[in-house]
Amino acid sequence: MERRSRLTPEREAEIYECVERLVREHGYENVTMQQIAAEAHTSTATLYRHWNGKPRLVVEAVRNRKPHPLEAVDTGSLRGDLVAGVGPMEHAAPGDHELMAGIHNAARSDADLAAAVREVMAAPIERAVETVIDRAIARGEIPPDPPGRRFVHELLLAPIAVRPMMTGKHPDSEYLTAYIDAVILPALGVRRDH
Amino acid sequence: MERRSRLTPEREAEIYECVERLVREHGYENVTMQQIAAEAHTSTATLYRHWNGKPRLVVEAVRNRKPHPLEAVDTGSLRGDLVAGVGPMEHAAPGDHELMAGIHNAARSDADLAAAVREVMAAPIERAVETVIDRAIARGEIPPDPPGRRFVHELLLAPIAVRPMMTGKHPDSEYLTAYIDAVILPALGVRRDH
Repeated sequence: MERRSRLTPEREAEIYECVERLVREHGYENVTMQQIAAEAHTSTATLYRHWNGKPRLVVEAVRNRKPHPLEAVDTGSLRGDLVAGVGPMEHAAPGDHELMAGIHNAARSDADLAAAVREVMAAPIERAVETVIDRAIARGEIPPDPPGRRFVHELLLAPIAVRPMMTGKHPDSEYLTAYIDAVILPALGVRRDH
Repeated sequence: MERRSRLTPEREAEIYECVERLVREHGYENVTMQQIAAEAHTSTATLYRHWNGKPRLVVEAVRNRKPHPLEAVDTGSLRGDLVAGVGPMEHAAPGDHELMAGIHNAARSDADLAAAVREVMAAPIERAVETVIDRAIARGEIPPDPPGRRFVHELLLAPIAVRPMMTGKHPDSEYLTAYIDAVILPALGVRRDH
């Protein structure tokens, strides 16, 4: 990471904080690199050198604040990992869902932003999901090749992405736990009568 | 429907067509009732009298063109109904997904639009899903109170809402059929070895 060597982690965190605040206040589309540079007391040249452009800078900033809980989890059971991994969705600040929805919306017409979202946000969660499933297979909790494996990543995102659209409400922990038991575990080959 | 009695179905269809074209071209937020009235050769007073406002007019226009395929389906089996009901997602015009994504995005900051989406679009699909499940229960295909029942509506929308966000691709029919077999049917209590 030579190209980033001139920024300390503290400085990087300060810049990320500015970026996130500006995007929350003004929306992704309306924030400029000039604005970010001014607020963070740096230059656009420095921002471009380190992050290549607005898409990557914003996505790294948002991800930096809050890695997906599934990445840090290892409870010893598949159900435990899933519950610990999605439970915190309920406790997201109200603005967090808005922030992500705004970024996803901007990504529909911005291919660089869409690529940054996939690479910086979606890919690590995808790897975390794979790790959780591999551990469950190794423990013998589920069959070696569960039919729903390829869908688990998007199933985990569905409650936050789809439900608010249809009901105006974000899912609570009762809902998320029931969803894991009734949808995700059966898709991974866990029988209901187990 | 006395208040609508002065518009013939043909006239209504013409107005809906104008509305949809304008929203596709300019985006929900940018289209005005004045613009719609001018294009459709009518008055804003008429539009407000019949549709109450832009949210309801736009949502009725989009829905009118294309009711959800699940509403018309009755193949005689649960799997058949689901495949017939989601298969056509694959054949949506590229702009259709964009149109809906734009409306959902606008609905995040427009409570009247969000209510119209729920009432005019989501509720009929929800009822269609209930009907499909009730028929499967009546035929004895699934248990009377399948644990995943409450999640089926959002599971059906997840592939179009979540997958493009993560992969940049819309689901094809192989994907959708595998998803029905691996996720939705097990959530409704259909055993894999059946």
